Amino acid sequence: MAGSGETVSNKHVLFKNYVSGFPKESDMYVATTPTELKVPDGCSNGVLVKNLYLSCDPYMIVLMRKSIDPRTFTSYTPGSPIRGYGVGKVLDSRHPGFKEGDFVWGTVGWEEYSLITSFQPFFKIQDTDVPLSYYTGILGMPGMTAYFGFYQVCSPKKGERVYISAASGAVGQLVGQFAKLMGCYVVGSAGSKEKVDLLKNKFGFDEAFNYKEEPDLNVALGRYFPEGIDIYFENVGGKMLDAVLPNMRSRGRIAVCGMISQYNLDKPEGVFNLMTVVYKRVRIEGFVVTDYYDQYPKFLDFVLPCIREGKIKYMEDVSEGLENGPAALVGLFSGQNVGKKLVVVARVSLNVLA
Amino acid sequence: MAGSGETVSNKHVLFKNYVSGFPKESDMYVATTPTELKVPDGCSNGVLVKNLYLSCDPYMIVLMRKSIDPRTFTSYTPGSPIRGYGVGKVLDSRHPGFKEGDFVWGTVGWEEYSLITSFQPFFKIQDTDVPLSYYTGILGMPGMTAYFGFYQVCSPKKGERVYISAASGAVGQLVGQFAKLMGCYVVGSAGSKEKVDLLKNKFGFDEAFNYKEEPDLNVALGRYFPEGIDIYFENVGGKMLDAVLPNMRSRGRIAVCGMISQYNLDKPEGVFNLMTVVYKRVRIEGFVVTDYYDQYPKFLDFVLPCIREGKIKYMEDVSEGLENGPAALVGLFSGQNVGKKLVVVARVSLNVLA
Repeated sequence: MAGSGETVSNKHVLFKNYVSGFPKESDMYVATTPTELKVPDGCSNGVLVKNLYLSCDPYMIVLMRKSIDPRTFTSYTPGSPIRGYGVGKVLDSRHPGFKEGDFVWGTVGWEEYSLITSFQPFFKIQDTDVPLSYYTGILGMPGMTAYFGFYQVCSPKKGERVYISAASGAVGQLVGQFAKLMGCYVVGSAGSKEKVDLLKNKFGFDEAFNYKEEPDLNVALGRYFPEGIDIYFENVGGKMLDAVLPNMRSRGRIAVCGMISQYNLDKPEGVFNLMTVVYKRVRIEGFVVTDYYDQYPKFLDFVLPCIREGKIKYMEDVSEGLENGPAALVGLFSGQNVGKKLVVVARVSLNVLA
Repeated sequence: MAGSGETVSNKHVLFKNYVSGFPKESDMYVATTPTELKVPDGCSNGVLVKNLYLSCDPYMIVLMRKSIDPRTFTSYTPGSPIRGYGVGKVLDSRHPGFKEGDFVWGTVGWEEYSLITSFQPFFKIQDTDVPLSYYTGILGMPGMTAYFGFYQVCSPKKGERVYISAASGAVGQLVGQFAKLMGCYVVGSAGSKEKVDLLKNKFGFDEAFNYKEEPDLNVALGRYFPEGIDIYFENVGGKMLDAVLPNMRSRGRIAVCGMISQYNLDKPEGVFNLMTVVYKRVRIEGFVVTDYYDQYPKFLDFVLPCIREGKIKYMEDVSEGLENGPAALVGLFSGQNVGKKLVVVARVSLNVLA
């Protein structure tokens, strides 16, 4: 029975050491320790969670590098499990907000069972008529990133021209669909024919292209945006940003969600075309989704009906088993995933502890 | 008598040909043509102006380069006078908004007499108890650039930490004083000891430094902003912007007024530290002062009392005579001017035509 104090084997994905350059599977390793399925006596507010789904997100690679400025982020600790967003089921709780049997999502360790003592963030899942795995994506951090990044940072208007890089990823696929719902013209780029087809045929983008097949990104963008870009949802950085800048329209907005092309570089690429920011009165604005977590209910009120009514499509790319976690995470950086990448630790129907 | 149709000799500063790299005096030349002091019969709405003061502004160097994208700006025409902001006196007018004897400021040719047919912009000067030359600077385009750039684009709050590059220039000296009036901590950089002394002793900046004497701009900024920069008023671009980015505070704002360090480069410098825009939720926003010209009366209501009450200091760097115009303009790009650079074509007291 859950919370009984039974001791079980707990498999973890541990961080080996700080990475420079491109991370490899061997920068992580899997190990097992015994874990008591009970919040320890001295741990007030602790919550013991059985992890079901773990989310692979681009920012995680940044945490594998040694932080130069601890004010910006805290790196993973060598020898400890890597951390990320996950969906789980509460087995034992000393926290008044969570009780045994609750489904939750938030920051957990990459392991079978996590003792949660820091709730940044940690949400109880209220709606379980949708797949629980969605709380790693469309109903979790990536969904909120797309929603608040697009609606609040981009200041979109009907009919505007929207460009999204890394458009088939967890965030990009949603931004494009939000933009279409608003009546925008939407173009996305991705790194394979399969992804480009998805953007056009499944997610309803007006146009899409494979950036790897374009000898000149500036020319490619001019082809899809002969009158320029009003909104660029930036997931990529570097050369892509440099090609976008001269294609921006007057008073265009660039919401900087991330720069995945730069995370693995010891020295980032230079961006040369910033003068257009002046000529065209462009606004470039970085944002961090955690700033919007207090608006989670507002977000759910919008997105849940869209999912239930089929107005928004969502695509996951699932790896089975914690031992396949390192490969899943590293694959994110070579664009191997098609859609939101996640790792299944245990399926809820298989949860013998429930 | 003005507007009599008398024919006089009209000296012009003419543009020779498109410039690449650093502009030289010899990219312009002085020539004289006869000009009738009367708006020609066929020229409805024309205004004939005797120019008094001509403004040297950084953007003018951009117009000496061949425009790659005519949507962003229109280059000077080889063989024609260069254009810029100036203060003049109306000698003849067919425009209902201007009459003989009015003092005006706006876009004119670099010449003794200009026939104005395009009024982008063109303002009648109402307040003449302040020096007329101020309408090339603190009461004209640079003043509005500082005012709207700081108050509207930077979203300043009392107590915030403000950094200004090219701080002793026409715009920078005003931004710093506006920020001090608001109760901000203000640091400026400039390119000589004389300018640094001015910033601290005349304009009341809290701190100032000579960027040419700093081996590492990032370190210098860390010294003056140990807790980071809330607002950067960007006049310089390139390496300076790259050094500022890691020193920005969370939710910092960068108002991009111009990038004078980049105007003479055939290929601009790369900016590498843009990832901090995400981590620190930084907003980078370009602006163009012409967008705010409809708010000119609001601006005057604020600035004229500041000048009359001595709350704002203003410093000009004056070259005498149109024939010294090319040297004055080119000198702007090696930082030779100390304060707002302008050229006196004729002093109003010497204006025998008035």
